[in-house]
Amino acid sequence: MKPKRTVMPDKSLRNVILLLSCPDRAGLVYRISNFIYQCGGNILDLDEHVDPVEKIFFVRILWSPESDSMSLSELEDAFRPLAEEFDAEWKIRFTGLKTRIAVFVSRYDHCLLEILWRNSIGEFAVDIALIISNHADLAPLAAQYGIPFHFFSLSGDIKEAIERQEVALLEENEIDTIVLARYMQILSPRFVDRYQNRIINIHHSFLPAFVGSSPYRQAYERGVKIIGATSHYVTEQLDQGPIIAQDIIRVSHKDTLDDLVRKGRDLERLVLAQALRYHAEHRILVNGKKTVVFD
Amino acid sequence: MKPKRTVMPDKSLRNVILLLSCPDRAGLVYRISNFIYQCGGNILDLDEHVDPVEKIFFVRILWSPESDSMSLSELEDAFRPLAEEFDAEWKIRFTGLKTRIAVFVSRYDHCLLEILWRNSIGEFAVDIALIISNHADLAPLAAQYGIPFHFFSLSGDIKEAIERQEVALLEENEIDTIVLARYMQILSPRFVDRYQNRIINIHHSFLPAFVGSSPYRQAYERGVKIIGATSHYVTEQLDQGPIIAQDIIRVSHKDTLDDLVRKGRDLERLVLAQALRYHAEHRILVNGKKTVVFD
Amino acid sequence: MKPKRTVMPDKSLRNVILLLSCPDRAGLVYRISNFIYQCGGNILDLDEHVDPVEKIFFVRILWSPESDSMSLSELEDAFRPLAEEFDAEWKIRFTGLKTRIAVFVSRYDHCLLEILWRNSIGEFAVDIALIISNHADLAPLAAQYGIPFHFFSLSGDIKEAIERQEVALLEENEIDTIVLARYMQILSPRFVDRYQNRIINIHHSFLPAFVGSSPYRQAYERGVKIIGATSHYVTEQLDQGPIIAQDIIRVSHKDTLDDLVRKGRDLERLVLAQALRYHAEHRILVNGKKTVVFD
Amino acid sequence: MKPKRTVMPDKSLRNVILLLSCPDRAGLVYRISNFIYQCGGNILDLDEHVDPVEKIFFVRILWSPESDSMSLSELEDAFRPLAEEFDAEWKIRFTGLKTRIAVFVSRYDHCLLEILWRNSIGEFAVDIALIISNHADLAPLAAQYGIPFHFFSLSGDIKEAIERQEVALLEENEIDTIVLARYMQILSPRFVDRYQNRIINIHHSFLPAFVGSSPYRQAYERGVKIIGATSHYVTEQLDQGPIIAQDIIRVSHKDTLDDLVRKGRDLERLVLAQALRYHAEHRILVNGKKTVVFD
Repeated sequence: MKPKRTVMPDKSLRNVILLLSCPDRAGLVYRISNFIYQCGGNILDLDEHVDPVEKIFFVRILWSPESDSMSLSELEDAFRPLAEEFDAEWKIRFTGLKTRIAVFVSRYDHCLLEILWRNSIGEFAVDIALIISNHADLAPLAAQYGIPFHFFSLSGDIKEAIERQEVALLEENEIDTIVLARYMQILSPRFVDRYQNRIINIHHSFLPAFVGSSPYRQAYERGVKIIGATSHYVTEQLDQGPIIAQDIIRVSHKDTLDDLVRKGRDLERLVLAQALRYHAEHRILVNGKKTVVFD
Repeated sequence: MKPKRTVMPDKSLRNVILLLSCPDRAGLVYRISNFIYQCGGNILDLDEHVDPVEKIFFVRILWSPESDSMSLSELEDAFRPLAEEFDAEWKIRFTGLKTRIAVFVSRYDHCLLEILWRNSIGEFAVDIALIISNHADLAPLAAQYGIPFHFFSLSGDIKEAIERQEVALLEENEIDTIVLARYMQILSPRFVDRYQNRIINIHHSFLPAFVGSSPYRQAYERGVKIIGATSHYVTEQLDQGPIIAQDIIRVSHKDTLDDLVRKGRDLERLVLAQALRYHAEHRILVNGKKTVVFD
Repeated sequence: MKPKRTVMPDKSLRNVILLLSCPDRAGLVYRISNFIYQCGGNILDLDEHVDPVEKIFFVRILWSPESDSMSLSELEDAFRPLAEEFDAEWKIRFTGLKTRIAVFVSRYDHCLLEILWRNSIGEFAVDIALIISNHADLAPLAAQYGIPFHFFSLSGDIKEAIERQEVALLEENEIDTIVLARYMQILSPRFVDRYQNRIINIHHSFLPAFVGSSPYRQAYERGVKIIGATSHYVTEQLDQGPIIAQDIIRVSHKDTLDDLVRKGRDLERLVLAQALRYHAEHRILVNGKKTVVFD
Repeated sequence: MKPKRTVMPDKSLRNVILLLSCPDRAGLVYRISNFIYQCGGNILDLDEHVDPVEKIFFVRILWSPESDSMSLSELEDAFRPLAEEFDAEWKIRFTGLKTRIAVFVSRYDHCLLEILWRNSIGEFAVDIALIISNHADLAPLAAQYGIPFHFFSLSGDIKEAIERQEVALLEENEIDTIVLARYMQILSPRFVDRYQNRIINIHHSFLPAFVGSSPYRQAYERGVKIIGATSHYVTEQLDQGPIIAQDIIRVSHKDTLDDLVRKGRDLERLVLAQALRYHAEHRILVNGKKTVVFD
């Protein structure tokens, strides 16, 4: 069965977003804005940044198209020659076309609930197509929001086979982006490579402080006065991917390890939600090991 | 004697900034970026915003010009026809050309010291041409930084005459912008009108809370858990001008009124410094009673 | 039917909290800590504050009692003579005895969900006995968490009668504290008086800025750079009650009114949750129009 | 020549502070508050904390003594038996008796200026007895505030001899506490040991992230979205001492390395000033590798 892809019918929601990076040179804004003007578009929002060290050009443009404008593939075809001339990485999206995502979870509910609830009130431009977990705990929460829940019991020797099943499920559902909502398993390099810059993780520390396991315990033992959470794209190196969003909260000697966990939960769900919103609104470009976030 | 205007000799500091607002319409970015391209410029930074309610277009563009580029007046002449076609408010500036400012103070030193020190280490693109005060207290501080200090003893019946002397002094020194660094006097409407959107004030509360006098006392008596400071352009209506920057700090039942004043001092000097930096870097456009700040 | 009151069986959860305020004088800490020592208690946490202007003494003490310690009423009886000598307002509570609360809501779900979810994972020491609403919208959410939901259709002429029914319901359920989770109705002075310092409201602005209705619209039109939320005890004067907690978030010219509402939602639910936690853990003493919060 | 020690004449400034830690047991607050009561004192502020893991008791008490109260040594003698019974680490201070400090600097002026200015307006209870530097750059700033400036030219082979001269100077001036205000030299273990928990450093990162040199460059290259500063007591292990205070500021892809340095300067001076204020007001107790800060 073909998965359903939600397209918003409202015309005002069919604005166009271009996200592009390429080697910097004179005339890029002029050439691109000329293209948009020739297509009858009116630019509503333009953010441009040139990395002064690497001399790379980054831009996000949001425009309202003419009333009987081109389809997405027509737009892409029309823009392609320019992009090739600039040697650019790029994508064009309609604002009304939702990104299809899968959420991976283990046993903690706070990040999953946050995403399900925010999406239910229209904060995200995503379709949550399915939830995958190595525990059955959160199946009832998934059911409350009417999202298919797939439970895969992981044990060491069949991990590779399970991952193949998961990939099949993701492909069948035309999943674009994966959100790790406190998923307590390491993904294989092969998996990570397949979804490059499309797997969003939340790490429960202010990276690069407290890499690895038990960051709250590490923070408690070090006696820091501030703890944090970090959302980043997943790369093969654990906790080393490009950082999308971070936030912090103050702690004191009065806070026990449990208090750190409690305070951290609020950070985790807010920071992950923010990163997902940036991603779903096509606001992020990856610049080597870093991100450009046009917020 | 003609006042000296500091021009930075370094070529890399002769980038160009355009700050412009006009009624929105299709093609504005294309037309402006085409102009820059035709002049041989390479855009380094472009921030654009369209007010979705008022349909007004705002843009700030920073570009590096060709090596033997036009003078400022040549650039202005070349751009004028476009600006007139767009019915725009606009200005063009070179990054290396400092804004000439006067600082008005009374008896508190913290905001003045902050501005003098930051400027001494090169944080601001300003020439502090003179300091005007209705008290003599801060003359030694001005002397430490080598800035002329003018003391005008204010008393009710000669206030108007004093203000005329101050204006004469400001004009003689070709002052562009006035910074009120905890200046405890009200300026006349005539004065305010002459320097529209060029007088920056710091108010020691989180406006619009605690308008008027003794905001810390008001905050203490209300029992707020957070206090703030607000920097804004001065208009005829007290504490009602367009807000440029705000910041806050937490307080608790343990904080006395003196503690609020102490904590507030840190806010005041940092927020005023931030507003002045935005202004001096030509990052602010006024949108009715609000500001657009391209930070 | 008698309402059930949850008592935690775990002995370590039967610590004792004393919350007390009285006119200041020498020896108060000595006398009170002597009482605790005589009862065999070991103080785990003591916060004391003297209002330096009003000369009022405030204290919160948490202690672990002897293994076969007194009942609550025995403790109260033993302490009463001291309290009367000090002319004190005071209460003694066991940490394991949950506060019974009712939540009042209208149509927004975010604050209610926040409270229900936090309580479900054990963050609050409360029993959510019932939910009262003037709309039916949130009945399904109440059902998900298994909480009785009472819908009262309000119309002008029967408002008083409805409130009488609500009070009856609250009394029948032995409700101690009422949480207004974005409840869009004004309570009568008679109602407010009955639950003095036991009705917690969340106002969606940084009070005292933007009192009254549509604070986000007011904030948008004023062009502030920071918005806030405020949780306070309800008094007869609208938005004037003692402030318990406040928090803020940055906004910019890019944020539409909808963005302010979205960002504000996160503040509202976090600030209300924080206030409820302080209240449920008996950390708040009211000091005239202000609060002392021992966090 | 005997160094002058400033004693504040104002009676209201002769409040007493006790700072004490010892193994926890029942009755400690009672016994200590009884002592204060017997001495005729009235407690103004009491903060108590028991480390729930290590079972250590920490307390800071501020009280106003009787009008013709005991001298400091009389108080110490009277309290000593109790302290010995509790096996406590403790000190008693009068609020009006300033802590004598030395500031060590290299070439950056921002932290030194911050301390000198704050002290000049009465924010700190310290006497800045002298400034020691391995560069001559900041001698004029020291002179502006009338503080003796000692320049020691450091080179590898005489480092030990220099440190001996510095220690002699510190002892001669009865220095209690040393502030490293961006001092770019490592102190010897012998030196550190002599001033245990009395050397305050500012590290320009959010420790434990970016230990060691060039933390801003490390932060820039990692692409963090938040940078920080950390003030801590110096121990033999570089950047590992007990943390006193931390703060952060947001950065984005727009910020160059220079911007990080600029933003970080504001953090450094504020965080160091906060730590020094806590220390000078006797608000800090060291708990192993952590601190208890009664703020």
